[in-house]
Amino acid sequence: MRIFRALAATIFLALAAQAQTPATSNVRGAAYPAIDPDRRVTFQVKAPTAQTVQVMPGGGANGLGKGPFDMTRSPEGIWSATIGPVQPGFYYYWLLIDGVPANDPSSKTYFGWAKESSGIDIPDPALDFYEPKSVPHGNVQIHWYHSKVTGKLRRALVYTPPNYQVNPRARYPVLYLQHGSGESERGWTEQGRANFILDNLIASGKATPMIIVMEQGYAANAGGKESFGDLLIQDTIPEIDRAFRTRAHREHRALAGLSMGGGQALTIGMANLDKFSALGIFSGAARNFDVATLPADLNKRLKLFWIGCGAEDRLIESARKMHASLEQAKITHEFHEAPGLHDWQVWRRHLHEFAPLLFR
Amino acid sequence: MRIFRALAATIFLALAAQAQTPATSNVRGAAYPAIDPDRRVTFQVKAPTAQTVQVMPGGGANGLGKGPFDMTRSPEGIWSATIGPVQPGFYYYWLLIDGVPANDPSSKTYFGWAKESSGIDIPDPALDFYEPKSVPHGNVQIHWYHSKVTGKLRRALVYTPPNYQVNPRARYPVLYLQHGSGESERGWTEQGRANFILDNLIASGKATPMIIVMEQGYAANAGGKESFGDLLIQDTIPEIDRAFRTRAHREHRALAGLSMGGGQALTIGMANLDKFSALGIFSGAARNFDVATLPADLNKRLKLFWIGCGAEDRLIESARKMHASLEQAKITHEFHEAPGLHDWQVWRRHLHEFAPLLFR
Repeated sequence: MRIFRALAATIFLALAAQAQTPATSNVRGAAYPAIDPDRRVTFQVKAPTAQTVQVMPGGGANGLGKGPFDMTRSPEGIWSATIGPVQPGFYYYWLLIDGVPANDPSSKTYFGWAKESSGIDIPDPALDFYEPKSVPHGNVQIHWYHSKVTGKLRRALVYTPPNYQVNPRARYPVLYLQHGSGESERGWTEQGRANFILDNLIASGKATPMIIVMEQGYAANAGGKESFGDLLIQDTIPEIDRAFRTRAHREHRALAGLSMGGGQALTIGMANLDKFSALGIFSGAARNFDVATLPADLNKRLKLFWIGCGAEDRLIESARKMHASLEQAKITHEFHEAPGLHDWQVWRRHLHEFAPLLFR
Repeated sequence: MRIFRALAATIFLALAAQAQTPATSNVRGAAYPAIDPDRRVTFQVKAPTAQTVQVMPGGGANGLGKGPFDMTRSPEGIWSATIGPVQPGFYYYWLLIDGVPANDPSSKTYFGWAKESSGIDIPDPALDFYEPKSVPHGNVQIHWYHSKVTGKLRRALVYTPPNYQVNPRARYPVLYLQHGSGESERGWTEQGRANFILDNLIASGKATPMIIVMEQGYAANAGGKESFGDLLIQDTIPEIDRAFRTRAHREHRALAGLSMGGGQALTIGMANLDKFSALGIFSGAARNFDVATLPADLNKRLKLFWIGCGAEDRLIESARKMHASLEQAKITHEFHEAPGLHDWQVWRRHLHEFAPLLFR
């Protein structure tokens, strides 16, 4: 009897191991973190000299659950832990080595929490709009330019749609798309997969081919004052209109962002309606929103005013209030709640809903 | 007397702190690692719960010296260490948290040693050819494409020279440029600064404007066999010639690489002289080089055969042997020794010498 039980356990473990798939967010060749079909995640790291090793979700708790999760040590000093089932989406995490946050050497790094952090992308069997598919792919161009506002060299990441290079006379509308607090210009493509979302939307005819510009939402001017709005208006937009084949007019220019970037889109957008005709506020930091501060003729000037938030986000109440006050003031806008918290799976959904409405 | 001594010490420390400059390889806003004018480097990390923290140069020893270097703990749990004077150049490093290698949260990450690793760039007051200057900058484009050899989506990083976008009819020669073992397609721009090296060479008229293609030098085919050569010839080159405005002929195509990539350039290049007219072998893994295996009419077929190595590199003896056997066989080539070990400062120098000779 005992031998059968042992055999059954061995077969079960073998099958479970076989069904695990390395995360797409792993570095080349890393078998762990590995994801089961039921979305349980196994982490593994070699740390023979550590006393304790734990998995810590970014911020202490996210779609991976509430950490830290203890790992257990093998005699060889390999630590492992299986957690979950976890939520689909992209989540930051660290390993706590004797309590000190460290990156998982098996993970790619993603800029979040103001540093290079480990991240894991948990697939959603019900959603594939952000997966790379067999469609033409746009490029993401790293474009360096000098900023007069900061006095320094900066870089923007610029998504150019498929066939941008082979249609040398075509001109395109531009979406300026900003990341959240503690993140960088890399967030929307590496964490958010904005390029694959747009590739898929464009291939199916659901979105107008467009350029997307992603800059770093921090810009200290000569006096040390945060001046991202000045940078965007005075440096970035003129530079993009110079260096790329844009349709350089407010009708063909939009501004959107998530969290801190949503607050920036609202503030900078409303103050520069001669530059933008569409705005997107994703899980936006809009707690102090006052409808009375908006221009009186906003409905005539904005073609699209799009507001979204995760239904489980702590910001949902302020987003709903913003929605209600806009309704009351008869300001035309769209309001969308997506399932989820304050994370990239919500923002992928938001971009996927927002982009098809632009430049129509 | 005591008060003067204390005052003098305070002033000294204040001046020393003032003279420290955060490394350009730090993340946004990180004050450490900081570099003194005499190239001493101070590392600092918060790790209150760690028993020991050390700085470990990549591979145990590099231009930072031979590690590990012990850090000392402040009462608040801030650990710090000052090392050096160190050598100018780019070096990988980790922090050992109770003996476990971890990234420094203050550092950007660079793909090396088969994982995301911390890195530090120590400026060389005598060399500025790889620094970003006030000249027109090319873009680095992330280009996704399907590989028939691997059956998977891949990405190449493609440097397009300044004005590539605004000269829609101009066509350019192409250099294929490969990284070393354990690195990735990001190495030549992030560690090597290939884009700034070319920007500066092109601005001063020293190099022909060219496209540089950087791919990941690992490519398992359907059977799991390493097939980077097949990938390059069958997939990458046709794709680049399709998607970019290249001069698609061997006269206008070169192949070079460093270390493992140098070995690949030699092997793949010699086997495909119908595709390439110039080869560059930087610190190349060419220990088993046999001049007898080279095509008899090589002098007629290669316009440039360039070999370089760091004078302190363990591979220098095999590089010198290769040079001597080529001399003896009267095979036209260039041989260059650069000061330094097996590291990026040597490869920056090599690219800076090699690129001006291409496509003349």
